[in-house]
Amino acid sequence: MSDHGLTHLDPLGRARMVDVTPKEPSHRRALARARVFMQPETTSLVARGALSKGDVLSVARVAGIQAAKRASDLIPLCHPLLIGSVLVNFRIEDSYVEVEAQVETVDRTGVEMEAMTACSVAALTIYDMCKSVDRSMVIGDITLWEKTGGRSGTYRRAVEGDGTDPT
Amino acid sequence: MSDHGLTHLDPLGRARMVDVTPKEPSHRRALARARVFMQPETTSLVARGALSKGDVLSVARVAGIQAAKRASDLIPLCHPLLIGSVLVNFRIEDSYVEVEAQVETVDRTGVEMEAMTACSVAALTIYDMCKSVDRSMVIGDITLWEKTGGRSGTYRRAVEGDGTDPT
Amino acid sequence: MSDHGLTHLDPLGRARMVDVTPKEPSHRRALARARVFMQPETTSLVARGALSKGDVLSVARVAGIQAAKRASDLIPLCHPLLIGSVLVNFRIEDSYVEVEAQVETVDRTGVEMEAMTACSVAALTIYDMCKSVDRSMVIGDITLWEKTGGRSGTYRRAVEGDGTDPT
Amino acid sequence: MSDHGLTHLDPLGRARMVDVTPKEPSHRRALARARVFMQPETTSLVARGALSKGDVLSVARVAGIQAAKRASDLIPLCHPLLIGSVLVNFRIEDSYVEVEAQVETVDRTGVEMEAMTACSVAALTIYDMCKSVDRSMVIGDITLWEKTGGRSGTYRRAVEGDGTDPT
Amino acid sequence: MSDHGLTHLDPLGRARMVDVTPKEPSHRRALARARVFMQPETTSLVARGALSKGDVLSVARVAGIQAAKRASDLIPLCHPLLIGSVLVNFRIEDSYVEVEAQVETVDRTGVEMEAMTACSVAALTIYDMCKSVDRSMVIGDITLWEKTGGRSGTYRRAVEGDGTDPT
Amino acid sequence: MSDHGLTHLDPLGRARMVDVTPKEPSHRRALARARVFMQPETTSLVARGALSKGDVLSVARVAGIQAAKRASDLIPLCHPLLIGSVLVNFRIEDSYVEVEAQVETVDRTGVEMEAMTACSVAALTIYDMCKSVDRSMVIGDITLWEKTGGRSGTYRRAVEGDGTDPT
Repeated sequence: MSDHGLTHLDPLGRARMVDVTPKEPSHRRALARARVFMQPETTSLVARGALSKGDVLSVARVAGIQAAKRASDLIPLCHPLLIGSVLVNFRIEDSYVEVEAQVETVDRTGVEMEAMTACSVAALTIYDMCKSVDRSMVIGDITLWEKTGGRSGTYRRAVEGDGTDPT
Repeated sequence: MSDHGLTHLDPLGRARMVDVTPKEPSHRRALARARVFMQPETTSLVARGALSKGDVLSVARVAGIQAAKRASDLIPLCHPLLIGSVLVNFRIEDSYVEVEAQVETVDRTGVEMEAMTACSVAALTIYDMCKSVDRSMVIGDITLWEKTGGRSGTYRRAVEGDGTDPT
Repeated sequence: MSDHGLTHLDPLGRARMVDVTPKEPSHRRALARARVFMQPETTSLVARGALSKGDVLSVARVAGIQAAKRASDLIPLCHPLLIGSVLVNFRIEDSYVEVEAQVETVDRTGVEMEAMTACSVAALTIYDMCKSVDRSMVIGDITLWEKTGGRSGTYRRAVEGDGTDPT
Repeated sequence: MSDHGLTHLDPLGRARMVDVTPKEPSHRRALARARVFMQPETTSLVARGALSKGDVLSVARVAGIQAAKRASDLIPLCHPLLIGSVLVNFRIEDSYVEVEAQVETVDRTGVEMEAMTACSVAALTIYDMCKSVDRSMVIGDITLWEKTGGRSGTYRRAVEGDGTDPT
Repeated sequence: MSDHGLTHLDPLGRARMVDVTPKEPSHRRALARARVFMQPETTSLVARGALSKGDVLSVARVAGIQAAKRASDLIPLCHPLLIGSVLVNFRIEDSYVEVEAQVETVDRTGVEMEAMTACSVAALTIYDMCKSVDRSMVIGDITLWEKTGGRSGTYRRAVEGDGTDPT
Repeated sequence: MSDHGLTHLDPLGRARMVDVTPKEPSHRRALARARVFMQPETTSLVARGALSKGDVLSVARVAGIQAAKRASDLIPLCHPLLIGSVLVNFRIEDSYVEVEAQVETVDRTGVEMEAMTACSVAALTIYDMCKSVDRSMVIGDITLWEKTGGRSGTYRRAVEGDGTDPT
């Protein structure tokens, strides 16, 4: 893969699914996060659910796990792969709910898009379940935090405060 | 729908798909936006593609349109409906690409989730196609800007500067 | 529809999707149930989960709701329709977990298959989540209990004996 | 995997997809069965079809095979895998039609859920195609009969009469 | 719809799903056909199957019916709609198998793409099932033969020459 | 696999998914083509789009790539596999648009059906986007041109003029 251009376009600018067949399968992991910003009253409704029956976050967790398995069906040039594990967890703060998704596989290509898709769909599910009480919610900060395995090696997102994190 | 609680949970806190059968079908529209924040070098690569063959944005547009049709398959408590039209467009700024999705239908339930899902998946597709050159991209500002039709009437997101927009 | 033969086969015995276009849309409802028979130790593990975080049943509920929306994609001659509501609930007894699904719509065709599919997939999900502790589980008693709306009117399953076991 | 608890829940009771990446791929096979109980007149209608054009069972066979490939899409914590073969067959008795599904793969995880799902969806398809003549049908006895391969080795369901089979 | 341009592109040449919400639902029907050209030995193998158990054509029929329901999921700018009926039939000639699909609905948009997709996927299924004996098969003559309903009224394909070959 | 019969039917003529588990994964490639025959005015509309924004062909390319990933979901007895790369390209002639799809994988089974499905769905997408100006289009000449890898070795379709190509 070139460092100098968009590998999903061929030299004539046409979309293509990059060939991964020359690569060997290896263990790969990716960690992504997203936040659903909302009114403090809304986070507290979610939190109360989390303490009793937990259904907003339970439903969002299932939606995120299922979406990880469908990333290549949703994103046109994303390679299909067999997910080995998915974890989707949540952290509730005053003004947002944070979603974290970790995906692992043994395959020829990485699982960033699976982790990003899991976060996005879990966040959309939270939005859907809370929109009757708070229509001003915003989903943001969807980004890759860590990636290991594969030829490009380990990537870790620079932490807040060093100027590269827009959150 | 009650203003006082999460309508997707029943009184015992269990997830449910709200009954829309008593409603009459009516014309509904929703407009949502998302942004993919990236290095200026990356936006200019996208823009160059946009000027010649346009494939990053063409692929993302198709992905967004297809995702709008699958919103209820991705989001557990979202009602299935028949989309009457979808438009997905883009605006390229120095530090981000903005996605805008507008969805219309004649149905018993609104199309916010369809528009939000179209934006999210179009943004994920841009991320996927650009990640080989810029791993620090962040998807954010996914939110509903306008909604018309249905019992709750018209909703317009307050514009930036009046204190309700967290971006 | 004829009472005298299999309407999903034409006079030459070939599979067909029966034409529902001459019918008018009307309100329809169906109620189905299934049971997952298991060791008492297993039901008590499920019950403990149900009391604290509830995840076996929460996951099964989401799986059942999602499956209801996909009935026509799974069952070849089943008509697609737009589900207006789905409820999936559970009852834990000593030797089984009972799943109940109720589906409503306003459409040209009934929702029996949607309710039956929701029960089946919720039961399969319970089986999947409990199989590491109890491989001898059996899913059974999947049947339609009630159906209203449509030309054939209301159907209620006859209660046999004490009314709890339809087999 | 622990024998002592539900491996699909983490220690805090949250749903997770168990990590199979440390396992090596190996040959695995599973055999499951289901029964659709119906009036003798209904089994004889199915049987007559089976003798001429066979469409009820042909359609159910295709539905079962397709469903085996979608097990992980239907069952939230089920791992995706690549099915190497599926056979779906039927046996017609006086009061029921029995479905048998056998699935094989070379993968890191077993194919029980694929075989169980194939049986369930084939049975639902038979139900759908016969429901115009017999609304009282019941689907039952969906269970795993045999499983080979993987760390836990061979499992064979105890035959009727020794007290472990509820049929 | 304009006669003067591609309605699926907006004035700037960008893909869009045409808005059908202003239309009223009405009864619509479409009839399409396709042919799988093959060696006479291959058609006779298919025909023999058709006479005994009929599985090549039974499987292809189910595949075509299922594909009709997924047309809008496969074809990006195709509107989702609820199919009211699908018939898929076959005619075996010396050098080809002909597939015919008829689709009906009551909706705001036509069912040409559903009928064309049913034919295409049924033909691909025949190809898949026969390719081990005849790799030189060619699928062709996929075209719309008739269309009724909707604002544009009835369309019937002009018969060229002797009326059997539309190419 | 036998050369003497349809391997997708068992000795009793029942549909089955052939067992590929005894095979070793190896690199495989397939190349297929299809043509959409249309009026010269229509090809020139497509070509003009191709020169400016390219959206008919861009949309068809994405549809073809996505369809390659879903071949086993559409074609009942087709094995699921993980696609390693897909290229979909086009050639515009006076009276037709030619689609070419090349698919590669490292797996136990070939990718002919993936390449054929990509061509078919890309062709259907072109048909859908052009049908408002030209209803007489015909999709044809869908065939396999090359196949490498696997036990049966390399296959190349005989070129036009030697009597084996029916186009």
